[in-house]
Amino acid sequence: MRILVLNAGSSSLKYQLIETGVRDEHVIVKGAVERIGAAGSPVHNHTEAVEEILPNLGPIDGVGHRVVHGGERFKASALIDLEVEHAIADCCSLAPLHNPHHLACYRAAHALLPNVPHVAVFDTAFFHTIPRRAFLYAVPYELYESDHIRRYGFHGTSHRYVSGKAAEQLGIPPDEVKLITCHLGNGCSVAAIEGGKAVDISMGLTPQEGLVMGTRSGDIDIGVIFHLARQKGMTLDEIEKLLIHRSGLLGLSGRSNDMRDLVHAAQEGDARARIAVEVFCYRVKKYIGAFWAILGGADAIVFTGGIGENRPEIRDEIMAGLENLGAVEVLVIPTNEELVIARDTARLIGRGRA
Amino acid sequence: MRILVLNAGSSSLKYQLIETGVRDEHVIVKGAVERIGAAGSPVHNHTEAVEEILPNLGPIDGVGHRVVHGGERFKASALIDLEVEHAIADCCSLAPLHNPHHLACYRAAHALLPNVPHVAVFDTAFFHTIPRRAFLYAVPYELYESDHIRRYGFHGTSHRYVSGKAAEQLGIPPDEVKLITCHLGNGCSVAAIEGGKAVDISMGLTPQEGLVMGTRSGDIDIGVIFHLARQKGMTLDEIEKLLIHRSGLLGLSGRSNDMRDLVHAAQEGDARARIAVEVFCYRVKKYIGAFWAILGGADAIVFTGGIGENRPEIRDEIMAGLENLGAVEVLVIPTNEELVIARDTARLIGRGRA
Repeated sequence: MRILVLNAGSSSLKYQLIETGVRDEHVIVKGAVERIGAAGSPVHNHTEAVEEILPNLGPIDGVGHRVVHGGERFKASALIDLEVEHAIADCCSLAPLHNPHHLACYRAAHALLPNVPHVAVFDTAFFHTIPRRAFLYAVPYELYESDHIRRYGFHGTSHRYVSGKAAEQLGIPPDEVKLITCHLGNGCSVAAIEGGKAVDISMGLTPQEGLVMGTRSGDIDIGVIFHLARQKGMTLDEIEKLLIHRSGLLGLSGRSNDMRDLVHAAQEGDARARIAVEVFCYRVKKYIGAFWAILGGADAIVFTGGIGENRPEIRDEIMAGLENLGAVEVLVIPTNEELVIARDTARLIGRGRA
Repeated sequence: MRILVLNAGSSSLKYQLIETGVRDEHVIVKGAVERIGAAGSPVHNHTEAVEEILPNLGPIDGVGHRVVHGGERFKASALIDLEVEHAIADCCSLAPLHNPHHLACYRAAHALLPNVPHVAVFDTAFFHTIPRRAFLYAVPYELYESDHIRRYGFHGTSHRYVSGKAAEQLGIPPDEVKLITCHLGNGCSVAAIEGGKAVDISMGLTPQEGLVMGTRSGDIDIGVIFHLARQKGMTLDEIEKLLIHRSGLLGLSGRSNDMRDLVHAAQEGDARARIAVEVFCYRVKKYIGAFWAILGGADAIVFTGGIGENRPEIRDEIMAGLENLGAVEVLVIPTNEELVIARDTARLIGRGRA
């Protein structure tokens, strides 16, 4: 089948048209519309972006939509009907920067391809198996019941894909494997996998929690927010922008959110680039230790994502000293979220027809 | 020497008069003034509390003041003079709920005992050795330079005391010992100790970060704050009160901030009490794993504080499964922060006279 995969970011829309035949699985064409809604950009919103992409792709058998937040409702990918569309809309308050764009893309694509099945593949779905002790925050329990405040986790499509691949490579049955999977890209997360199921994840209610990322702070004392508001008179919007867009590797280094730049600059003697790299690696190491403890050991530590796949010196710095955890295999597995989305879409379409 | 130890909380003032003689170290008298400033209370502020306590204690050779926040300035306890008093005042913005009370107590005690040495013993001082990769948050570096936003850590007096005792009990020289010390009381923190020096600590800029505590949330996605502000219209003050006074064990259980009550209720079948206990133990386990990884192993895990010393079932639940970390000793060591403050005070007075 020819499956179109749509992956909407806040100001971009990436797409891949993928042939999903078992014997002939490959990308037919891919691309992206960038700077959506930016000043002077000819593309004003995600609806226009979809209208620009779709007419040029030839026949399409199904559309797979990446959707960041599926709340507690979606434990797996789902064919989109009116009820599912409303449920995705209900999750907008949990992911106000993401789900509205996904909905806009779905509605535009559905208008152009009304007779083709559309499937939603959720970043959160893989984490529906994590237990209460891992997903509850220690806040009044009513906030979980009434406002659905809990750890959801993101990057699920990637962690699912690489943990499956890792079990294959290790020759361990999926339902017996214990893994710690590190997705280190512009966004970063670590997951604990037991028996092929996620049992914990560093990202939380939002993709802001956990590791240091390109421009996101990751874990931080909430006192920082109160300090910035009271001592510096910043508004909540200003604080959020600071912690999401000007922190992380960029904030520490004052130079770049790109690990390649920082590794290079650190080698050239840039002290701030060096400390950004150090803090980044140190935090990954702490999560690996935490998940090692809750899993009671792991068969392998898996690296994926742009940094995880391509920066051996970062992997080495993270793993330094961890040999004391016991003999543990380190695997590097390139992720492929679009392929997972295309396969899920083809599978659900096939099931719908059967 | 007869040393008076003053420990001011937000609405209480605890005191101990301690004889610090090497051959005859003991508590002469201790007590507390509670409900300071509360409606109907005869004691309106910390100044009045000091004035109520001091005249009835007989001769006093020195006063040791617990001070929560010493910023980056204080790497050890200090005799208080005008310059030190001003430096403590400078740290008020970092600990607005604590340092102003400590200052009020010092000024009142100094007015009544102007010819006696006063010493400040800081909760933060023991953590002056933690490295940059552990104390920096991934926010713009300027916030560290200009606003001193970093991890400081608290409970230092307790972690220092029990780590010293643990090295003694293990028969390992202090400069070779590796320890993970868990202070689990109404406030809770975990420290990583290497060669007798702190290298990391779960508490951060404020005592709010890290473990689940009696009424404090500990680690949480900052998105929770933005959600409460935007979706529920709460003010920052309301959110802070919720996360500091109505969260933690109390918030999850809806019943109590006291671990004794929760263990009992969980045994009686209360599901919310059970989940509060589970989340509490799970988070301690994660920190032990994280610090195990960064230390590359430890000689012992040390428990102290009200919960750590007196709740074997909680220690067991935390340690369950951690045998895979390798053979590790578990020690229970009662803490004694007042004794450390009295000893530091006597030592600094002796040095001042020499």
